[in-house]
Amino acid sequence: MEHDNKVKIIFQPSGRRGEVDRGITLIEASRQLGVDIEALCGEKKVCGKCKVRIEEGFFEKFGVHSSRANASEWQEEEEKFITGTQREEGYRLGCCAKALGDMLIFVPEESRAGKQVVSKAARDIHIDWNPAVKHYYVEVAEPTFEEPTADLERVMQELELRYGLKELNVDYLALKTLPVRLRDKASPWKITVSVWMDKEIIRFLPGNREDYYGIAIDIGTTTVAAYFCNLRTMEVVETVSMMNPQCKYGEDVMSRITYHMMNPGGLEKMSEDIIEGLNSLVTRACEATHPPKKKKKGNGEAEEMTAPVEEGAETAQMVEDDEMLIFKAAEGKHYLCLNPEDVIDMTIVGNTAMHHIFLKLDPQFVGLAPFPPVIHKGLDIKARDLGLKVCDSAYVHVLPIEAGFVGADNVGVLIAEEPYKKGEVQLLIDIGTNGELVLGNREKLISSSCATGPALEGAQITFGMRAAPGAIERIKIDPETHEVDYKVIGRDAWKSFSKPEEMKTKGICGSGILDLLAELYASGVVVKSGRFNKVQKSNRYRINPDSGQPEFVIAWKEESSIGKDIVIAQKDVRQIQLAKGALYCGCKLMMRRMGIKSVDKVKIAGAFGTHVDRQKALVMGLFPDCSLDMIESVGNAAGDGARAALLNREKRNEANWVSRNVEYIELTVEQDFQTHFMEAMQIPHMKDKFPHLEGIVPPAVLDQR
Amino acid sequence: MEHDNKVKIIFQPSGRRGEVDRGITLIEASRQLGVDIEALCGEKKVCGKCKVRIEEGFFEKFGVHSSRANASEWQEEEEKFITGTQREEGYRLGCCAKALGDMLIFVPEESRAGKQVVSKAARDIHIDWNPAVKHYYVEVAEPTFEEPTADLERVMQELELRYGLKELNVDYLALKTLPVRLRDKASPWKITVSVWMDKEIIRFLPGNREDYYGIAIDIGTTTVAAYFCNLRTMEVVETVSMMNPQCKYGEDVMSRITYHMMNPGGLEKMSEDIIEGLNSLVTRACEATHPPKKKKKGNGEAEEMTAPVEEGAETAQMVEDDEMLIFKAAEGKHYLCLNPEDVIDMTIVGNTAMHHIFLKLDPQFVGLAPFPPVIHKGLDIKARDLGLKVCDSAYVHVLPIEAGFVGADNVGVLIAEEPYKKGEVQLLIDIGTNGELVLGNREKLISSSCATGPALEGAQITFGMRAAPGAIERIKIDPETHEVDYKVIGRDAWKSFSKPEEMKTKGICGSGILDLLAELYASGVVVKSGRFNKVQKSNRYRINPDSGQPEFVIAWKEESSIGKDIVIAQKDVRQIQLAKGALYCGCKLMMRRMGIKSVDKVKIAGAFGTHVDRQKALVMGLFPDCSLDMIESVGNAAGDGARAALLNREKRNEANWVSRNVEYIELTVEQDFQTHFMEAMQIPHMKDKFPHLEGIVPPAVLDQR
Repeated sequence: MEHDNKVKIIFQPSGRRGEVDRGITLIEASRQLGVDIEALCGEKKVCGKCKVRIEEGFFEKFGVHSSRANASEWQEEEEKFITGTQREEGYRLGCCAKALGDMLIFVPEESRAGKQVVSKAARDIHIDWNPAVKHYYVEVAEPTFEEPTADLERVMQELELRYGLKELNVDYLALKTLPVRLRDKASPWKITVSVWMDKEIIRFLPGNREDYYGIAIDIGTTTVAAYFCNLRTMEVVETVSMMNPQCKYGEDVMSRITYHMMNPGGLEKMSEDIIEGLNSLVTRACEATHPPKKKKKGNGEAEEMTAPVEEGAETAQMVEDDEMLIFKAAEGKHYLCLNPEDVIDMTIVGNTAMHHIFLKLDPQFVGLAPFPPVIHKGLDIKARDLGLKVCDSAYVHVLPIEAGFVGADNVGVLIAEEPYKKGEVQLLIDIGTNGELVLGNREKLISSSCATGPALEGAQITFGMRAAPGAIERIKIDPETHEVDYKVIGRDAWKSFSKPEEMKTKGICGSGILDLLAELYASGVVVKSGRFNKVQKSNRYRINPDSGQPEFVIAWKEESSIGKDIVIAQKDVRQIQLAKGALYCGCKLMMRRMGIKSVDKVKIAGAFGTHVDRQKALVMGLFPDCSLDMIESVGNAAGDGARAALLNREKRNEANWVSRNVEYIELTVEQDFQTHFMEAMQIPHMKDKFPHLEGIVPPAVLDQR
Repeated sequence: MEHDNKVKIIFQPSGRRGEVDRGITLIEASRQLGVDIEALCGEKKVCGKCKVRIEEGFFEKFGVHSSRANASEWQEEEEKFITGTQREEGYRLGCCAKALGDMLIFVPEESRAGKQVVSKAARDIHIDWNPAVKHYYVEVAEPTFEEPTADLERVMQELELRYGLKELNVDYLALKTLPVRLRDKASPWKITVSVWMDKEIIRFLPGNREDYYGIAIDIGTTTVAAYFCNLRTMEVVETVSMMNPQCKYGEDVMSRITYHMMNPGGLEKMSEDIIEGLNSLVTRACEATHPPKKKKKGNGEAEEMTAPVEEGAETAQMVEDDEMLIFKAAEGKHYLCLNPEDVIDMTIVGNTAMHHIFLKLDPQFVGLAPFPPVIHKGLDIKARDLGLKVCDSAYVHVLPIEAGFVGADNVGVLIAEEPYKKGEVQLLIDIGTNGELVLGNREKLISSSCATGPALEGAQITFGMRAAPGAIERIKIDPETHEVDYKVIGRDAWKSFSKPEEMKTKGICGSGILDLLAELYASGVVVKSGRFNKVQKSNRYRINPDSGQPEFVIAWKEESSIGKDIVIAQKDVRQIQLAKGALYCGCKLMMRRMGIKSVDKVKIAGAFGTHVDRQKALVMGLFPDCSLDMIESVGNAAGDGARAALLNREKRNEANWVSRNVEYIELTVEQDFQTHFMEAMQIPHMKDKFPHLEGIVPPAVLDQR
């Protein structure tokens, strides 16, 4: 044991190491040393995802005597997740064990925070051109003794004369650049003025500059996507995305709100993380407009870093370690060579918690009934006041919030889909960590939020994980043999066409989970109530010796990269039931409130909507009965809304209007909520109405119910 | 000689010392080490004010071998100011000599930048109450499930309901404080909202807060004055002032513009100096609202730092070293205990160069014909964007500029004096480093700027100095004997009632200079053309052996604290003539332009106006013929204008209006300018019209002309 206030910690296999304050938890140490350990529950000691192993012995390479005795005492909460054998091997929960002395810590693959495969391409939606920032080109006369008017006033006179712009304000930082830019040698007395909302001059550029750029950002709880747009042509120049760097503080919004409440300065830390993240995202979007950089090979030769592919080819995105490499068209491309200071406008959507944390607005009251946010309406903030490194004088427009958990992301979905302009009754479902629902048409719109929990995103499931390589995304279970076939992200071939060791399976992601439940039920492994069937046909069904709970093996140890069988446990089935029950019950209660029996259209937004098998979602009872062709996936509609608000200022007014004209329903206080919820948890909710599912649900199973 | 890139410099008698880059001028070294050396000409090597002496020898205390050989070569320009004897003693000009090795440098008292006695009290002028920032108190209902509206929207609903305030924006930093302040334990759901221009919420304070504060600032070329006001009662809580810290870059505006053009980063340096100065001024104004601090005496006992005086007594200000001690009412006083973050609004006036430098707006084009400024109109800038440490969300309103050299300070004078509301024709004269003139009434206003030069402020005069202790401010010359009697600032008794060694005379300040010229002329020492009379009666008149020029001794060596005779030389008389000629000629040309022969009122603003003997100014021909009772001194009218704009938002519109509706006349391009100017330099310009001056101007002298 050391006697000063610092201890040495080494994390393996990453090899990251350093000195940290004695007494902090291992998960806090991992954060400080830049190691991503899963912390789904936000260190509430309830998810068990942050399991690590403390090694024993002297590690010469690091000059460290590592000992399990250097960790703080074993805690009761760890019992639930760490078996006796594991305990003997040195396993601890990162959120429980504190560093009291030097340690070398092994982070098992399953505990490493994976990187999600992000697919948030911009959809081709119709947007009218009317950006908040517009460019105006003017030529002014040189000052003379007769007319020695100030630089700004000369420019403003022309702006009024030529474009009818009156009583403009000017941003102070933009003003500073005027005298020199107006006298630019290459184009003296000719200037392009960027005007925000026909109210404020925010940039002067010498000469005539036609093209100018903005960025629309969707801050998701898990993923952040950015659309870099040409504000003149409305073209999406680049799409880039990243994991929300706040994931390390907890997977879901409540964990992050908790982190803020439990840690002084936690809000600032989380906010700065996302601001820094956005800055790197903007930089990356800009870098993509430059010619590929040369990289030194080991032998000193220069090498193309990005592979040239055909013109017009889709931008393929792959995640590798902390960097996202963008393979893009390199041949025949006209490089725009843009820099962050070229970004002259920005729009942002995000759920209420992401919105508040981003803005450093205290989110604690959003987490407490009756969940009032700090602000509803859209906000225009100078980027510089937020620490965003774009054009000095640019504004960031943050879209409005509807209510409590129904945030600016949902407003984004609404202004992209515009249900308030249509006669047909639409049900908009945005499944993220929470389910957000909007129902209605031009007559009336109501919204609500249902606590689906993160199960449909793969969290709080024993082997749940994000949609990252190695995650099971599709499953089939043979009704006769109960043999399992599946497909993992990052590998095209199904298991039945692969050698076991080729699969490298790590867990199950959100869309795989729904598939799994449908298959478990269709094959008769579980029954209507969600319990495991008493009649089981294969050795995949077993009782877990540690928990005493039944479980079903999806992938055997030899197919997995984490050295153990990947199973679905009874409690996991419950989690999925809770999620789908919450969603279904939410939809039904909203329909009751509207006094309707059916809807004309179901639109599913978000990554889940893109990946989910609509038929299976229907049979599982995720949403009310309708025909398959009424269900539409609308992709990242929240991001589309942010883009619409970037390219058309009227959309910002529309957003403010709709955010205050959607009636928010607090579901949990609705009459019979509990009863409806319990009923909705059954699977499948209404199989009788789906004769076409007969093929999926085998007669043998149907009989059993 | 050292061989690394740093040299050690010690300045005496201040003892300030440190290492500076080898090769910089001594004046630059003095700046870096915080020693104030006079640099009137902005290092153009033409004023000779920065004379210093390099000592020879080893100075054990500092471990430094000082040598004159460690300074760079003697320059031709130094000949004009340093006599052969002085050169032998080690004198150099600080702007010429560069530090090539270690040196101990003595700064003679005459070269030290003196601290001016500032008298910029707020006048009692009428202002209607309508501040830009107003306070609104509201009580809001707690959120419920039925009405879970956001915090901001609850407050805004009440603001609309109770005060009719609609569509308010909210400053982002203010918004951050809302959720916690709205739930303040002592006054939950009760809040005071500071609203700027009925447009933007800039502060939330828990409970009901009636009083709130702002500050009006006049940035003069030499002096900065601040009026700390209660925005509810309009009362001036404190008046504080300081030297403009930019004086070290040069005395007049052109020197500072030159400094910017010659030194990369010079603009930023000067701007940061004034910003830092304003921050310390605000802090000082706030500190004055706290109970006096206890200061440790040498013996460890606590001592009152500020002397208690009677309630209601005038605030006396004295300058001591870098600090201005404020002796103020300490007994029975209710201490407001305000802090800089309590300052919720700010207005600023200053001439065009001060305005531009403060805002870091490139001032180079203001210094070049046709002198276009960067901006005319008033500007609202967030204090935080300027680095001003007041309330985070407060705005600073910078008043508009009229034209070229006629700046926001003159606009301040106009909105304080309101000549555009009157029928009588007023001539407003603001004598600072430049003379600014406005002439007219409600029909028409014209303005111009005349290059009086800094002579009337005591600069560019051999023994000229600022209005600081030791400066001659009043002079009498006996017409018979040519004996001189005078009074210095800081000593009540005239010389004739004092022992010579009690006078401690240092030089002559602006108002003394005008007195001096009138007396020189009235006593016949100089004639109408400004040349010294060939018939001289006393040994005070002599030919300077170094310059070969005639001079007249005002104070003998034994009366002075600088160890030499204080004289007025022929060239000094010329400087004063140039100044008064420029002013007079300016007034006359403006009257010609207006087609008038006389004015109804002459108002003199600025410190010069307060100190000057109106009769002497009249006989000297500073301004056109009028009766004595038509001349009025209006004190720091520019500061009054800033205060008016702080307390009445309409004054800001008025300022914008008047700044664009005063016709600017460029005098130097007026017909016959040169002829008028030459004529105006004569003294007295129109003695025949002033029979009451017969007593002043003795017959003997009158005959001579």
